[in-house]
Amino acid sequence: MIRFECDYAEGALPEILDLLVKTNFDQTPGYSTDVYCDKAREYIRQECAAPDADVHFLVGGTQANKTVIQSILRAHQGALCAATGHINVHESGTIEAGGHKVLTLPSDDGKITAQQVKDYLHGHYTDPTMEHTVQPGIVYVSNPTENGTMYTKAELEAIRAVCDEYDIPLFLDGARMGYGLAAPGNDLTLADYARICNVFYIGATKVGALFGEAVVINDSRLKKDFRYHIKQNGGLLAKGRLLGVQFIGLFDERKLYYKVSQHAIDLAMKIRKGFEEAGCAFRYNSPTNQQFPVLENSLMEKLAEKYAFSFWEKADENHTVVRFCTSWATKEENVDTLIADLKQLTK
Amino acid sequence: MIRFECDYAEGALPEILDLLVKTNFDQTPGYSTDVYCDKAREYIRQECAAPDADVHFLVGGTQANKTVIQSILRAHQGALCAATGHINVHESGTIEAGGHKVLTLPSDDGKITAQQVKDYLHGHYTDPTMEHTVQPGIVYVSNPTENGTMYTKAELEAIRAVCDEYDIPLFLDGARMGYGLAAPGNDLTLADYARICNVFYIGATKVGALFGEAVVINDSRLKKDFRYHIKQNGGLLAKGRLLGVQFIGLFDERKLYYKVSQHAIDLAMKIRKGFEEAGCAFRYNSPTNQQFPVLENSLMEKLAEKYAFSFWEKADENHTVVRFCTSWATKEENVDTLIADLKQLTK
Amino acid sequence: MIRFECDYAEGALPEILDLLVKTNFDQTPGYSTDVYCDKAREYIRQECAAPDADVHFLVGGTQANKTVIQSILRAHQGALCAATGHINVHESGTIEAGGHKVLTLPSDDGKITAQQVKDYLHGHYTDPTMEHTVQPGIVYVSNPTENGTMYTKAELEAIRAVCDEYDIPLFLDGARMGYGLAAPGNDLTLADYARICNVFYIGATKVGALFGEAVVINDSRLKKDFRYHIKQNGGLLAKGRLLGVQFIGLFDERKLYYKVSQHAIDLAMKIRKGFEEAGCAFRYNSPTNQQFPVLENSLMEKLAEKYAFSFWEKADENHTVVRFCTSWATKEENVDTLIADLKQLTK
Amino acid sequence: MIRFECDYAEGALPEILDLLVKTNFDQTPGYSTDVYCDKAREYIRQECAAPDADVHFLVGGTQANKTVIQSILRAHQGALCAATGHINVHESGTIEAGGHKVLTLPSDDGKITAQQVKDYLHGHYTDPTMEHTVQPGIVYVSNPTENGTMYTKAELEAIRAVCDEYDIPLFLDGARMGYGLAAPGNDLTLADYARICNVFYIGATKVGALFGEAVVINDSRLKKDFRYHIKQNGGLLAKGRLLGVQFIGLFDERKLYYKVSQHAIDLAMKIRKGFEEAGCAFRYNSPTNQQFPVLENSLMEKLAEKYAFSFWEKADENHTVVRFCTSWATKEENVDTLIADLKQLTK
Repeated sequence: MIRFECDYAEGALPEILDLLVKTNFDQTPGYSTDVYCDKAREYIRQECAAPDADVHFLVGGTQANKTVIQSILRAHQGALCAATGHINVHESGTIEAGGHKVLTLPSDDGKITAQQVKDYLHGHYTDPTMEHTVQPGIVYVSNPTENGTMYTKAELEAIRAVCDEYDIPLFLDGARMGYGLAAPGNDLTLADYARICNVFYIGATKVGALFGEAVVINDSRLKKDFRYHIKQNGGLLAKGRLLGVQFIGLFDERKLYYKVSQHAIDLAMKIRKGFEEAGCAFRYNSPTNQQFPVLENSLMEKLAEKYAFSFWEKADENHTVVRFCTSWATKEENVDTLIADLKQLTK
Repeated sequence: MIRFECDYAEGALPEILDLLVKTNFDQTPGYSTDVYCDKAREYIRQECAAPDADVHFLVGGTQANKTVIQSILRAHQGALCAATGHINVHESGTIEAGGHKVLTLPSDDGKITAQQVKDYLHGHYTDPTMEHTVQPGIVYVSNPTENGTMYTKAELEAIRAVCDEYDIPLFLDGARMGYGLAAPGNDLTLADYARICNVFYIGATKVGALFGEAVVINDSRLKKDFRYHIKQNGGLLAKGRLLGVQFIGLFDERKLYYKVSQHAIDLAMKIRKGFEEAGCAFRYNSPTNQQFPVLENSLMEKLAEKYAFSFWEKADENHTVVRFCTSWATKEENVDTLIADLKQLTK
Repeated sequence: MIRFECDYAEGALPEILDLLVKTNFDQTPGYSTDVYCDKAREYIRQECAAPDADVHFLVGGTQANKTVIQSILRAHQGALCAATGHINVHESGTIEAGGHKVLTLPSDDGKITAQQVKDYLHGHYTDPTMEHTVQPGIVYVSNPTENGTMYTKAELEAIRAVCDEYDIPLFLDGARMGYGLAAPGNDLTLADYARICNVFYIGATKVGALFGEAVVINDSRLKKDFRYHIKQNGGLLAKGRLLGVQFIGLFDERKLYYKVSQHAIDLAMKIRKGFEEAGCAFRYNSPTNQQFPVLENSLMEKLAEKYAFSFWEKADENHTVVRFCTSWATKEENVDTLIADLKQLTK
Repeated sequence: MIRFECDYAEGALPEILDLLVKTNFDQTPGYSTDVYCDKAREYIRQECAAPDADVHFLVGGTQANKTVIQSILRAHQGALCAATGHINVHESGTIEAGGHKVLTLPSDDGKITAQQVKDYLHGHYTDPTMEHTVQPGIVYVSNPTENGTMYTKAELEAIRAVCDEYDIPLFLDGARMGYGLAAPGNDLTLADYARICNVFYIGATKVGALFGEAVVINDSRLKKDFRYHIKQNGGLLAKGRLLGVQFIGLFDERKLYYKVSQHAIDLAMKIRKGFEEAGCAFRYNSPTNQQFPVLENSLMEKLAEKYAFSFWEKADENHTVVRFCTSWATKEENVDTLIADLKQLTK
């Protein structure tokens, strides 16, 4: 079975494993107060052109989302996001378990617009019974989105402008940020993210590391007491240095984070082209490492004999939307085999 | 600086790192549904003589405590434990963040007695205003305790008997379980834990792994839907296989879990003897890897120049209780140096 | 200003005030353990033909919804309801504040169907990633709905059948239950509600009392420990007898609950007819005390000079949906004046 | 049975019932936005010499405590109070249900000292692992305390000074505030409370009303969005005017709040004297409406045949601490009968 069903099917970059092995017997204090974490923070601040940002390392995305949102919201507030947002559909209600409603905006492709956010906020604050409803206290977006689509710099800036107008922070989930940075058409850099978002995180679990998400807080109002929230949410890793070491591996002078992301995107585009040439449509216009071709059911079944991929949704009686992912670890030979099979099956 | 301040100052056993490296490019499905996790579960069930137990892998202890307790308690219930319990003092209120009060019993050494539990439960159910108070819904103990002390088999069985009488589960936090199993005087095995506890976990973060806690649910009433709770608490590691691989490393035919625990205990006893010979008393009677000598302040200051250890509490004007930990990674030469220095400083 | 904007604009039935005055200096124990509450429970059990039901008195609807749902759901579960449901939109996120997601089904008129519930539950339990989503743990409906519409007996029975199939309880919010019982076309009795619902409540705040909702738990699995939940949610009124006395006033041999509901419905139908004759359409087909005519904006503005009513939503550029409510306290002369004015304004 | 077991055994002052009856058919908007609430707010601001204070009306004490604390604390914070505090022992864990730990200070008589608060806060902020513990985010005291004892003005000012030093608010639970104001030795006025506390409430449930607590927020930083919190906690009474009317009854020119409190205190002192003359000691030195005599068990049993009072705790084998309460409604003749019986039984 060749696996394209997710971007976390393998372990980590050999370079990262090497670093873990090399530093294994160094003694460090716990809970991310060690020199490796400090060094990694330094690298990330540089990449973000944000010398004053606070950088915190968490283990996974659900934990990062919960911790950031929990650290910001008051009891009567909720998180505003696309109905397709990861926090709304795929985190087992962890935001609600923390006491907060996820307030949703309709979205077909995973993105929301500044106008939607503005309308929602305006609607809330002009509702005479607003106190009977949940006050939006943070805006959550992901980029790339859960559907592989991308915001442009202008779109994110427009959302941030609305947030500023209503004095609520913009939080960006960058679980797949690397793949976005390498995507054709992308006009965003880490420095842009740090400037536009009040808080965001750089995902490594899906981009080369065993695990790890680096939360960057560039709004000084949001920095206070964040470590309490990490601990309360079970995210203060005893051997925090493991996170530091891994982010060093991704962001030191080798800049592996960008290189391995580019690799995944190159192969994703190859896959995309393969499906296009096989006559398939796509559910979303994704320039990133997740591709959502619409397959005839018979083709889907044939492919499933040899390849693992994800069921996404039914398109119609005879067609199904599926998801193929590439990652830092995807082997070009597997992609080539897939394309050859596609050609064979659809000729 | 030679570090004795905690048992998580280094990475992992080389054998575990080797396994991680060796399996690194295997493709597996995510979220602990892979073959490594299955194999590790098999090993643990065998060690526990609990063929029907559910075994789940979590990243850390706070997360494990929160997830287990959250999965069991109803909204009006709380967790009964020693006032010194980790969930009461050192988890940033994560149990309360989940909506539940931690109900405390006084304890000088980290242990509680069956009689204390019985009295509390009896008191609750005979209070005519009981509905104005929190109903105890789970009993939490740790073994070894946070103070290094150990329950005997009979003591735990007595607590379980009271729990059964009131139909509430007994949950045991085994963050340092390995060191307890190797402790002089210990009469408990993993099979005993599985039999006596409704649910417990085997800690690996502090016993040889990079991270990881294996929750063993041997009471079939507590098994349902546990994975939802893991996910909701941010504990469903994307690359769950990392946990499986590590627990294989600890529990395969090499039985490293026991061997490395024994190593730590041997060195802890050596340290204990060193402090005894230096004329120091001990705050707790600990047969495990945490030792709590009472030091004259001048001695403490001298030692602090070369060694990292933890401040515990003031004993009196001139004396301080400190904590020295050993672990799977402690080097005998460092212990010998410490003892030599102790001799020198107190002769 | 003549007020039709809600059904809680006045105090209480004079008969209820009389009872409160008459019993004022009786000494009773607190927290609904008094003889008045016992008597009221007896009346309600009789009306419900549910001799074994537990009956609890709470102060208001939001509190009742929160307490019932909180008492039933486990941490990983949510409440399934119409997107228009009161718990989803008008309770400031109190369900989420208790840790639970509100899972929504689309609805245009406030009702959901058994098929929708079945599809949702089926979808959840056949999703291979179900543990990443919130498990539906209760179905919430209101009758009459927030839009004035009514379920039939068959519709509720069908929903309950689906609930039974998936072993989750059906909870019915009866904040305006009296007005439903008196509605033309209604085929439900209190005994039906007690039989069909696992738990429901009979609203009195909007039907003749100063305040009060009677929760009826007819499913013995849901009875345990309910008073803890009431207390925890701030609903255990110190002078609980006030609730008992008021429900006696509504359900003693005079059966005022039904009589005053009929009064409100008669006047609501009169208002409906008035708007119909004035050529207005209605947003919902409501046979209950809330009427939702679609008004030309100029007519709406004219009416607003003399009458208080609620803005509901814009229909189009020139039309607006508004809400007129009647209640136990509505004066027929005010309704007649309204109708006369309507005729005058639209002739 | 003559009842002294609590201060909520009767309904309300006849003057309050009269006002409710008189205003019963006035039509008002809901949710405490009516003219009665506005008038009541005006009276309370005057009594408090706090023209800019926000005044909110809630139904009961547990609800008031939960709502105030929930509105102030962030997710990682807890409420610091005496171990005997009502929020810690008698509210079914409602603070924890809202996500916050109750942090306790030892207390024998219900009071805590400024020094205790200072030591706790100092200890927290000098603990190198403070992020692993709950941050104190509010100080909660009650006056009179749950044990009938009273803080002096100087004591409260000292606590507030510590709070200011650490920038956390002081919240005072005044469920029995009236009885404190009338207590011999009291040196506090409502204006003092408003000046010394960041937020407090004036209890009416136990002092003449059917129900009701008036929360006074005199610290402008705590005012924002409070109504959302009331709603979320089920405290936004639909017929809010009931609260306004009752507080008008207590605080209009007749000043009944003070008069009826004095009545209760006079009778409490009479009871106190009666027990003193009968040779009884007292568990707490209470100048308020709760008296805690230590009774020989035989005397206790005799009294229990005719009087309802509360069991408090065992003093020794032969003695028991009990609680006798007076209230606005206590009849002098009942007190006289009690005293006569006491004389008879102990002569």
